[in-house]
Amino acid sequence: MTYFEKIEKIKYEGPKTKNPIAFRHYNPEEIIAGKSMKEHLRFSIAYWHTMTQDGSDPFGNPVNQRNWFGETPMETAKNRVEAFFEICEKLGAEYFCFHDVDIAPEGDSLAEFFENLDEITDLIKEKMDQTGIKLLWNTANMFSNPRYVNGAASTNHANVYAFAAAQVKKGLDLSKKLGGENYVFWGGREGYETLLNTDMGFEQDNIARFFKMAIAYGEKIGHKPQFLLEPKPKEPSKHQYDFDAATAMAFIQKYNLTGDFKLNLEANHATLAGHTFEHEIAVARTYGALGSLDANQGDVLLGWDTDEFPTNIYDTTLAMYEVLDNGGIAPGGINFDAKVRRSSFAMEDLFLAHIAGMDTFARGLKAAAKLKEDKFFEDLKAERYSSFKSGIGAEIVAGKEDLESLTNYALNQSEVDMPSSHIEYIKSVLNDYLI
Amino acid sequence: MTYFEKIEKIKYEGPKTKNPIAFRHYNPEEIIAGKSMKEHLRFSIAYWHTMTQDGSDPFGNPVNQRNWFGETPMETAKNRVEAFFEICEKLGAEYFCFHDVDIAPEGDSLAEFFENLDEITDLIKEKMDQTGIKLLWNTANMFSNPRYVNGAASTNHANVYAFAAAQVKKGLDLSKKLGGENYVFWGGREGYETLLNTDMGFEQDNIARFFKMAIAYGEKIGHKPQFLLEPKPKEPSKHQYDFDAATAMAFIQKYNLTGDFKLNLEANHATLAGHTFEHEIAVARTYGALGSLDANQGDVLLGWDTDEFPTNIYDTTLAMYEVLDNGGIAPGGINFDAKVRRSSFAMEDLFLAHIAGMDTFARGLKAAAKLKEDKFFEDLKAERYSSFKSGIGAEIVAGKEDLESLTNYALNQSEVDMPSSHIEYIKSVLNDYLI
Amino acid sequence: MTYFEKIEKIKYEGPKTKNPIAFRHYNPEEIIAGKSMKEHLRFSIAYWHTMTQDGSDPFGNPVNQRNWFGETPMETAKNRVEAFFEICEKLGAEYFCFHDVDIAPEGDSLAEFFENLDEITDLIKEKMDQTGIKLLWNTANMFSNPRYVNGAASTNHANVYAFAAAQVKKGLDLSKKLGGENYVFWGGREGYETLLNTDMGFEQDNIARFFKMAIAYGEKIGHKPQFLLEPKPKEPSKHQYDFDAATAMAFIQKYNLTGDFKLNLEANHATLAGHTFEHEIAVARTYGALGSLDANQGDVLLGWDTDEFPTNIYDTTLAMYEVLDNGGIAPGGINFDAKVRRSSFAMEDLFLAHIAGMDTFARGLKAAAKLKEDKFFEDLKAERYSSFKSGIGAEIVAGKEDLESLTNYALNQSEVDMPSSHIEYIKSVLNDYLI
Amino acid sequence: MTYFEKIEKIKYEGPKTKNPIAFRHYNPEEIIAGKSMKEHLRFSIAYWHTMTQDGSDPFGNPVNQRNWFGETPMETAKNRVEAFFEICEKLGAEYFCFHDVDIAPEGDSLAEFFENLDEITDLIKEKMDQTGIKLLWNTANMFSNPRYVNGAASTNHANVYAFAAAQVKKGLDLSKKLGGENYVFWGGREGYETLLNTDMGFEQDNIARFFKMAIAYGEKIGHKPQFLLEPKPKEPSKHQYDFDAATAMAFIQKYNLTGDFKLNLEANHATLAGHTFEHEIAVARTYGALGSLDANQGDVLLGWDTDEFPTNIYDTTLAMYEVLDNGGIAPGGINFDAKVRRSSFAMEDLFLAHIAGMDTFARGLKAAAKLKEDKFFEDLKAERYSSFKSGIGAEIVAGKEDLESLTNYALNQSEVDMPSSHIEYIKSVLNDYLI
Repeated sequence: MTYFEKIEKIKYEGPKTKNPIAFRHYNPEEIIAGKSMKEHLRFSIAYWHTMTQDGSDPFGNPVNQRNWFGETPMETAKNRVEAFFEICEKLGAEYFCFHDVDIAPEGDSLAEFFENLDEITDLIKEKMDQTGIKLLWNTANMFSNPRYVNGAASTNHANVYAFAAAQVKKGLDLSKKLGGENYVFWGGREGYETLLNTDMGFEQDNIARFFKMAIAYGEKIGHKPQFLLEPKPKEPSKHQYDFDAATAMAFIQKYNLTGDFKLNLEANHATLAGHTFEHEIAVARTYGALGSLDANQGDVLLGWDTDEFPTNIYDTTLAMYEVLDNGGIAPGGINFDAKVRRSSFAMEDLFLAHIAGMDTFARGLKAAAKLKEDKFFEDLKAERYSSFKSGIGAEIVAGKEDLESLTNYALNQSEVDMPSSHIEYIKSVLNDYLI
Repeated sequence: MTYFEKIEKIKYEGPKTKNPIAFRHYNPEEIIAGKSMKEHLRFSIAYWHTMTQDGSDPFGNPVNQRNWFGETPMETAKNRVEAFFEICEKLGAEYFCFHDVDIAPEGDSLAEFFENLDEITDLIKEKMDQTGIKLLWNTANMFSNPRYVNGAASTNHANVYAFAAAQVKKGLDLSKKLGGENYVFWGGREGYETLLNTDMGFEQDNIARFFKMAIAYGEKIGHKPQFLLEPKPKEPSKHQYDFDAATAMAFIQKYNLTGDFKLNLEANHATLAGHTFEHEIAVARTYGALGSLDANQGDVLLGWDTDEFPTNIYDTTLAMYEVLDNGGIAPGGINFDAKVRRSSFAMEDLFLAHIAGMDTFARGLKAAAKLKEDKFFEDLKAERYSSFKSGIGAEIVAGKEDLESLTNYALNQSEVDMPSSHIEYIKSVLNDYLI
Repeated sequence: MTYFEKIEKIKYEGPKTKNPIAFRHYNPEEIIAGKSMKEHLRFSIAYWHTMTQDGSDPFGNPVNQRNWFGETPMETAKNRVEAFFEICEKLGAEYFCFHDVDIAPEGDSLAEFFENLDEITDLIKEKMDQTGIKLLWNTANMFSNPRYVNGAASTNHANVYAFAAAQVKKGLDLSKKLGGENYVFWGGREGYETLLNTDMGFEQDNIARFFKMAIAYGEKIGHKPQFLLEPKPKEPSKHQYDFDAATAMAFIQKYNLTGDFKLNLEANHATLAGHTFEHEIAVARTYGALGSLDANQGDVLLGWDTDEFPTNIYDTTLAMYEVLDNGGIAPGGINFDAKVRRSSFAMEDLFLAHIAGMDTFARGLKAAAKLKEDKFFEDLKAERYSSFKSGIGAEIVAGKEDLESLTNYALNQSEVDMPSSHIEYIKSVLNDYLI
Repeated sequence: MTYFEKIEKIKYEGPKTKNPIAFRHYNPEEIIAGKSMKEHLRFSIAYWHTMTQDGSDPFGNPVNQRNWFGETPMETAKNRVEAFFEICEKLGAEYFCFHDVDIAPEGDSLAEFFENLDEITDLIKEKMDQTGIKLLWNTANMFSNPRYVNGAASTNHANVYAFAAAQVKKGLDLSKKLGGENYVFWGGREGYETLLNTDMGFEQDNIARFFKMAIAYGEKIGHKPQFLLEPKPKEPSKHQYDFDAATAMAFIQKYNLTGDFKLNLEANHATLAGHTFEHEIAVARTYGALGSLDANQGDVLLGWDTDEFPTNIYDTTLAMYEVLDNGGIAPGGINFDAKVRRSSFAMEDLFLAHIAGMDTFARGLKAAAKLKEDKFFEDLKAERYSSFKSGIGAEIVAGKEDLESLTNYALNQSEVDMPSSHIEYIKSVLNDYLI
C-alpha cells in the first residue's frame, strides 16, 4: 500500500497524450559528453515544495489535495517521509533537500523540536539506506517563526541570535548524521525592512560571526559539508543582504570567508535581481564559487518569487552550458526548488511537474553538450578575443604595458577596425542547437 | 552594380557555419495549414530600422556602416530607395512600411518636405511596380521634430496640431498613390510628461477629433486603408495614452471609433506594458480589432524599447497560434519593427538579422499549425469549459439564470469537484510541439 | 472593559515622542475649502487588514498579537465586531468596509455561512446604530476558497459560478440591511494563469452576465448601491482582466455597463500596473467613473502588493488634488486598504498606522486645497492651452476644421514657437505647497 | 556681454511666482550642524548635461535652444567654456565635472583630440583661476565613440584598449593640470551584450589591469586624485560589470584595489539596480568606500536612466542623513548629473532646474541635520539593538560564544519577547522632520 499506488497507471486524460507519467527526454543512464545524464544532472527533490506546500497564496486558502495527513503532527511527519521517498524513487531522483521545519513539527519548545527532528531523521536515515537516495543539503528555516521577524543572524535581539545558532548546530548535527554533501544558508529575513531603523554594518558583522561559528563547529565535529550562501534580492525582506551572486561575493571577501563558502544559485532569484540565471552562474564561476543550483523559473512579468518548475529550454541550455564549462556541479546538484501552480493541486501533479522540469533540463543538457562538442561558442570567442593572443594584446595581458606605452601605441594607430558581432545570427544558430 | 553585390557570396566566417545567408526554416512556397508560408507570414521590412537607423544610442555615436550616403540629403534618399528594394527582393519580403521622414528629408519648410516626398515616392512607386513589393502601411512621424515636443494631436499648441494634420493628409495622399493597405498612428508623444501641466481629457478629445478628420479625408479621396492604432505604454513619453491594447479599445469605444480603427501590436510594446505579446493579440482579437503585427522582441530584464529581431520560438509560436485563431492577419502583416544590435553594425547584418527573424516566425508558424491540427489546446479547452455546455452552465450562457436561481442551485450543491489544470504538464507538451 | 482600554494611555516609548496616539494634522472638524476635513476625507477602516490579517507572509507564520480570539470561530467573530467598532470610534472613522469572509466563518456549507453572516450582521447593525458608523462598501471574497482557484464569474466550472452568484446575492442583501453606499467587485482570480488553457472572450462574457445579474437583483430588491470595479493588474492571478482603470473602462463600454459601474482605485494597484495613483484617478475622472479610493501605498522597488499605510505626502497631495477636481469622492470614500508591516505586530500599531495614514491624507488635502485656492495648476494649464481658445485652435475644438483646411493653414505658417514647460520649476513650486 | 545677460531679470511668467531665479532654501553661508551649507553641499555642475546635451532622445531630434554655437567646433567649445563658468558663478556652484569629449571636439585623430583638449583646458584653467571654481572630477568618455562598441578596458580588441589607455593618461594629465580632486571611471560599455560571445573573467581581469595602470601613472606623475568607480546596472550595455555598490566592492576586493578606489553613487543608477539611493550610500559607507554623489533622480515607473533633477525631499533627506553619518562627503561632492526635461528646452531652464535641485538638497540637509540633532534615529536604533550591549549579546559581539554555548543558552530560554518596530509610526515622524 503506497501513497501513489495509482501513479503507474494514472493517465492525464487530456488530449493527444499517451502516457504523461514518463520521461521523454531524461534517460538517467544515457551517456552525454562522457558521463551518464544522472551524473551531470544531480537532481534533487525539495521536501518543502513537495511535502508541506499547501497551495495557499496571500489571497487564497490551501487547495492542494494530499493523502498523508495523520491524527497528529508527528504522524503526518512520518507519513510524509514514506510518501517522499516513494516520490523520489519513482522519479529516479538521487538527492533531496530539506529545512528543519519541513520534516518535523516545532512543538512547544526548542527541546521538543529537536527531539522531533531526531525521531524523524532516524526514519529518514532508514529510508536513505534502503533506497540509496542521498542528502544534497539541508538548512535551517530561520524566517518563518515569529521570533525571526527581524532576521536571525542579523536580528536586533541577542536571544533570537541564540535560537538561530541552536538551529544551525542541530542542522549540522543532522547533516553529519545523514551524510549531507552541502549545507545552505538562505537569509530570507537577513536584510532590512527600512534603513530608518537598521544598522547595516552591525548586522552584517553579526552574520559573519555566525558563519564563522558554523565553520568552527563543522570542524569540531569532523563534518565539513560544502557551505553555501543562497542569494536573493528581496521577498520576504524589503532588501536582503545577499542580493545576488556578486553581492554575496563582496560579503564573503570582506569577512575572509573565501574558500569556506560557495553559492547556491536559483533561477527565480536571479531574475528578481535583474539578471539571467546563466549570468549568476557565470559570476559565481568567475569567482571560483559555483556551488549548487536551485532549479526553477520565475515569470519575468511578475515581481515575486513564483518558483515555477523549469520548462524554458533556453534557460536550461544556457545554465547547463555554464555547468559544463565548470566541469560539472558536484558536490552540488540541481535541486527543484519549484512548486506546482495553485491550479495543479492534484497528487499526480507532483510527478507531472517534476518530469516536466527534469525533461527540460535533459533537453538543455543535450543542447549544451552539442554546443560544447561543436565548439560553437568557444571558436567564436577565440576569434573574438584573438587580438589579445599576440602583439600589443599579449603584452597587455602579460602586464608589460602601461598608460604611456599604450598611449604611444594608440597615437600611431589609425582607427580600429572592429568586426561586427553578428548577434542576431548567433542567436539564430543557438536556436538550431536547442531544437 | 548594387548596394549588396557581395551578399550572394558573403559568408559569416564564424565557426561551423556553411551558409548563413540562407533561410533554413522559411520557405515562402511551402504549404502550411492550407496556405503558403508567405500568405501566412506577410513579412514587411521597416524602412526606418533598415535604412535610416545609424546604431547610435543615448550614450553612443552612430556606428552602422552603410554605403548609400550621397552628396546631398536627397541623393542619399534616392540611394536608399535603390538599396531598400534590393534588400526586400533578396529577402523575399513582399511588403514594406515607412514613416514620412524616413524616406525624404524634411528640408526647410513643410512645402519643401512635401515636394521631397512627392519626388521620392515617384521613385518608390516605380520600384514597387518593377518588383511587385507592396506597401503594408505608412505613417507620419509626429514625434521627432522639436515642434512635437508636447505631442501632435495632443499638443498644447494649435499650430502644432495643424502641422500634424498636414502630415497626415500628405500621408493619406501617399497611401493612395502607393496603394497602402493600412495606415498607422503611433502616438509616441501623445501622452504626458507630468499630470501637473496636463489636461488629459482635453488632449484625448483633440486626438479623437484628429482621427475623425483622417477618416473623413480617406472617404473624401476614396481611399480607405485599414486604420491602425499602435499601443505603447511609455517611451519617449512618460505616459502614452495608448498604453496597451485594452487602453486603446477604451479610447476607441469612448469616441465611437469602433470599426474604423483596429490595432497594430508590437511584441516589445507588450512587454513594456507588462503583458506577453500573445496577450495583446488575444485582447485585440477578443475586441474584433486585431489589425497587424510589429514583429520584434524586447529584453524583459531591460526597461526600454530594445526592438530586437525576434529569435524566441516560444513567442512566435504563441503569436502565430493567435493569428491562426484569427483566420490570418490580412490585410495586416508581420512587420519587422526591429533593429540590429549596435554591435551588429555591418551591412550583411541587415540580412542576417532579418533571416533570423523570418526563420523564427517560420518555426513558430509550423509549431502553431501542428498545435491547431492536433487540436491540442482546443480539446483541452473544450474539456475545461464543458460544464457550460449543458445543464446549469448552458442556462447561464443562455441568460436564463439570475442571482436567486443560482443561489438556490448552489445551496443544493455539495462542494465543487474541480479538476487540476496540470499546467506544468501542458507547458511540457508545448515544448514537444516547439522542438 | 474594552479591547483597547490602554490605548488612551499607551505611549510609544521611542525617542522624542510625546503622544503618538494622537492626530497632529487630521482635525475632522477643521474647515478646508468650504467643507470639514471629514467631509472631504470620508475615511473607512478595512475589516480584513484590521481584524483578520495575522501578519503571515509567503515565508512566515502569523505574528500579529491580538486579544480577540475566543473558543469558537463564531465567538472570535463576535469579539472582532466589538473590537472593530472600538477602533473605528477611537480613530474617528465614520465608514468601514468588509468582505463576507472577514466577518463570519464559512462553516461547513454555504447555508451555514449565510446563517453566520446573518447573525454577525445583526450585531454589526446594532453597533452601527449605536455609533453612527456607516458601511462604505462590502464585497464577496471570491478568491480565497479553493473552489475559486480558476476564478468566480470567470471560472471554467458552472457550479462555481453559481456559488459566486449566491455570495453576491447575499452580499447585496447584507448591503441593503446595513445601508451600504457602494458595492465592490475585485476580481482577484478573474483573469488567467496561462493563455494556453484560457478562453478569454468566453470568460469575459460570463463576467458581464454576472454583473448584469447583480444590477438586476439590486433593482429587484430596491437597493442600488454604487457598483464599483476595482482594477488590479496581477496577483494573485498571473493576469487579471481588470488590469487598470483604462482596461476596466474598455470592458464596461464593451458590455454596455457605462453608468452602472464606476471604479474603486487603489494606490498600490496603480503602481503595480505601471501608473501613478493620480493617473488612475485622472483616467477614471476623464471617463466620468471615479467611484472610490483604496488608500495605501506600494513599494515601487518591490513587485507585489505591499498594501502599506500611506505616508508619502506627494502621493496624497496629488490624489486629493484629483478628488477636489472631481468635486469630492462621495458616495465613495477613502478606505484604508492597508496592513501594518509584519514587524508592527502589536495591538497599538493598528492605531499608530491608521493615524499615520489619516495624517498623511490630511496633509495632502491641505496642500491640494491651497493649490486649488491659488489656482497654481489651473492658471498654468490655462496659459499652456491658450492657443485653443481663439483663432485656428478654437475652430479645431469647434469641429470646423479638416485635414485640408489645416494643411493650408500649416503651409502658411513658419515654424511653431513653443514655450518651454519649465517642468523642474513646476516641481520645485509643488514642493513649496507640500511643505 | 554674457550668454545669460537676462538671467538676473528673467522671470518665469507663470502664475503666483515672484522671482523664480532665486534660491528659496539654499543659502550657501547659512550654518547647519556646524558647517556652512556650501561646505556640506559641495555642489558641482556637470558639463555634459549643461553644455552639450541637446534635448534629443531615441525618438526625437535636438530641441534645446542654446546660444553658444560658433562657426567651428573649436569656436563652439570655447564659447561653452565662457557660458559654463557664467552659469557656475551665477548659481554659486564651486565645483564642476566633465568628460574629455564634453569640452573639446575629437577631431580626426587622437593627436588632434589631445591638442584640442590642451587648448580648451588652458582656457578652463584661466576661468578657474578667475572664479575660484574647482574641478570635482573629470573622466574619459569611453563609450560614445564607435571603437568602444564592445567596451574600453573590457573590449575584445587590444587596439581599442590602447586607445582607452591613452584617453585615461590624458585625463590624468588634465586632472593634474586642473587640480582635480577625484577621477571617475564609469563603465557604460564595460559589460556585455550577451554572454554567448563574452568571456566575463578575461574582460574583468583586463579592467583590473587597466585600473592598476591608472594608479601607477598617478603615482608616477605625483598626482593622486581619489579614484572612483561609478556603478550602474545596465544602459547602454545589457549588463554592466559595476551593477551596483556591492558588485563594485566585490570587484575591488577581488583585484586588491581596496583603498585605491572608492565609489561615486548616482541616485538614478541606484533605482535602476532595484535599490534606493540611501541604500547604495549606506553600502558604500559600510565598506568604507563612500566617495562622491551624482545627484539626480529617476522615475521609478520608467526603466531607463532619466537623469532628472532631484526634487523629491524624501530622497535628499535620507541621502544627506547618510552623508552626515559619514562625516561629510569631501573630497567628493554632490554633482548634478541631471538634465533638463526635453520640454524644458529654454536657456533659463538650466538655472531653474539647478535651483530646484540645489533647493531640494538644501531642504534635505536641514531635515537630516535636525534628525541628527534630535538623535531620532540614533536613539531608536540604540534601543532596538540594546540586547547586544550586555549579557549574552555582548558576549556574541566579543566573539566569546559558539554554536554550542548559544544552543545551551537558547534551550534555557522561553520564547523571545520581541518589541514591535512601529514602522508606520516611524515613517510618520519622519514626515514631521521633512516638512
